[in-house]
Amino acid sequence: MDRKNIVIIGSGNVATHLAIAFLKAGHRILSVISRNQNNAAQIGEKTRSSYSSDYNSIPDETDFIIVAVKDEAIAEIASKLNAGNAIVTHTSGSVEMNVFENHAQNFGVFYPLQTFHKEKELEIREVPFCIEGNNETTANALSELAKSISNNIHFVNSEKRKVLHVAAVFACNFTNHFYAIAESILAEKNLSLDILRPLIKETALQVMDKNPSQLQTGPAIRGDEKIMQQHLNYLAAKPDLAELYKKLSESIKNYKR
Amino acid sequence: MDRKNIVIIGSGNVATHLAIAFLKAGHRILSVISRNQNNAAQIGEKTRSSYSSDYNSIPDETDFIIVAVKDEAIAEIASKLNAGNAIVTHTSGSVEMNVFENHAQNFGVFYPLQTFHKEKELEIREVPFCIEGNNETTANALSELAKSISNNIHFVNSEKRKVLHVAAVFACNFTNHFYAIAESILAEKNLSLDILRPLIKETALQVMDKNPSQLQTGPAIRGDEKIMQQHLNYLAAKPDLAELYKKLSESIKNYKR
Repeated sequence: MDRKNIVIIGSGNVATHLAIAFLKAGHRILSVISRNQNNAAQIGEKTRSSYSSDYNSIPDETDFIIVAVKDEAIAEIASKLNAGNAIVTHTSGSVEMNVFENHAQNFGVFYPLQTFHKEKELEIREVPFCIEGNNETTANALSELAKSISNNIHFVNSEKRKVLHVAAVFACNFTNHFYAIAESILAEKNLSLDILRPLIKETALQVMDKNPSQLQTGPAIRGDEKIMQQHLNYLAAKPDLAELYKKLSESIKNYKR
Repeated sequence: MDRKNIVIIGSGNVATHLAIAFLKAGHRILSVISRNQNNAAQIGEKTRSSYSSDYNSIPDETDFIIVAVKDEAIAEIASKLNAGNAIVTHTSGSVEMNVFENHAQNFGVFYPLQTFHKEKELEIREVPFCIEGNNETTANALSELAKSISNNIHFVNSEKRKVLHVAAVFACNFTNHFYAIAESILAEKNLSLDILRPLIKETALQVMDKNPSQLQTGPAIRGDEKIMQQHLNYLAAKPDLAELYKKLSESIKNYKR
């Protein structure tokens, strides 16, 4: 891909990881725009670009404007932007592409489906990017941009993106909550999560090349009522957890059929 | 550790992985005893040991008898065994150590907290082994045996082992079920789980050195009622999933406090 001129709006985790990835891929970060001047200065330094808090300071030669801010801030920023001929995108899993429709000619979505932490390096080439554009040329341009930093590109419209988000809540947000519940169950008996960590890791890694529906183990899928009753007795003092245990066990049993 | 003489009872996933690990660590597998002569022959071949279906064929020089069979078969095998001076253990997360108390002098538990698949190699040195013995000498002997194949040894009594099992059901069985639910939600819209796999992996890997309670993300922890309502609307046609979504979101919100 040719070298592109990119403006980043936002200075959080996603903005930082994307800016660095674009730079590594040979693109130019013209400017980082953020209300938070400290963060903007940090990422500006990392990417050798100028920074600003003025949403109208978009240089004429800009090819892409990447709005990498919190969901609830996107609409307001969209209304303030002076995008010109640049393609404007956000990076959200939940916000409609059409948030830009009254404010730009060429717009889309550039959604990296991964959890980012500023301090933590990650293999951006493995991150799935979900791309949507308001016309074919825009969608293709965004896909090319994504390909310059990742090998894992998907065209996903706003409707399917929502489905993806629902699935991600189950597979990631809810699973992390179960890790936290396990942590608390163990802590109560002075047991460390360390003893479970290898099993947590293997449980996730084994679905990388197999289907989870074929890998279910545990008392519920075996129909081992005796063990389930023991566990429920143990959880009796924590009715919330006992109820979750019951619901999940039922769900596993019903899923089997 | 000295070379030990080991008899393996059982020929499933755990029996196979342990037998191979013991052999690699320099121990001798005297015999593999199993009702399933085909499986026993396979593992006998892999470990250059004899095989049999007679629970009384325990050689005098046996140091350890490892009963690696299904939970419900352990009690019956215990009653048939002629253990002599050997230390007898099972490998279960749920069965009491005392299942052996009327049938052997030295007995314990040798529980590898990991999910095993016969075809799949795994780093046995990273597998946590939960050790229990009916006296200190036995516990130490079992611990030494475990150390010869793993770097991750814990003394865990039967009561704590049960707590560990409850926690593992949340952190592993229930999370795999959520992976399966995500798979089905995506499949319905012709989306592949591939698009979520990197996020599933990262969600598990990030708790390897951090506490899950500090890594919670998603609409519930943010209190983003609008997104949660959208997701519930989407799930309205699947009341079971909608209910799970609600319960988990509530649990995450309550956990925050």
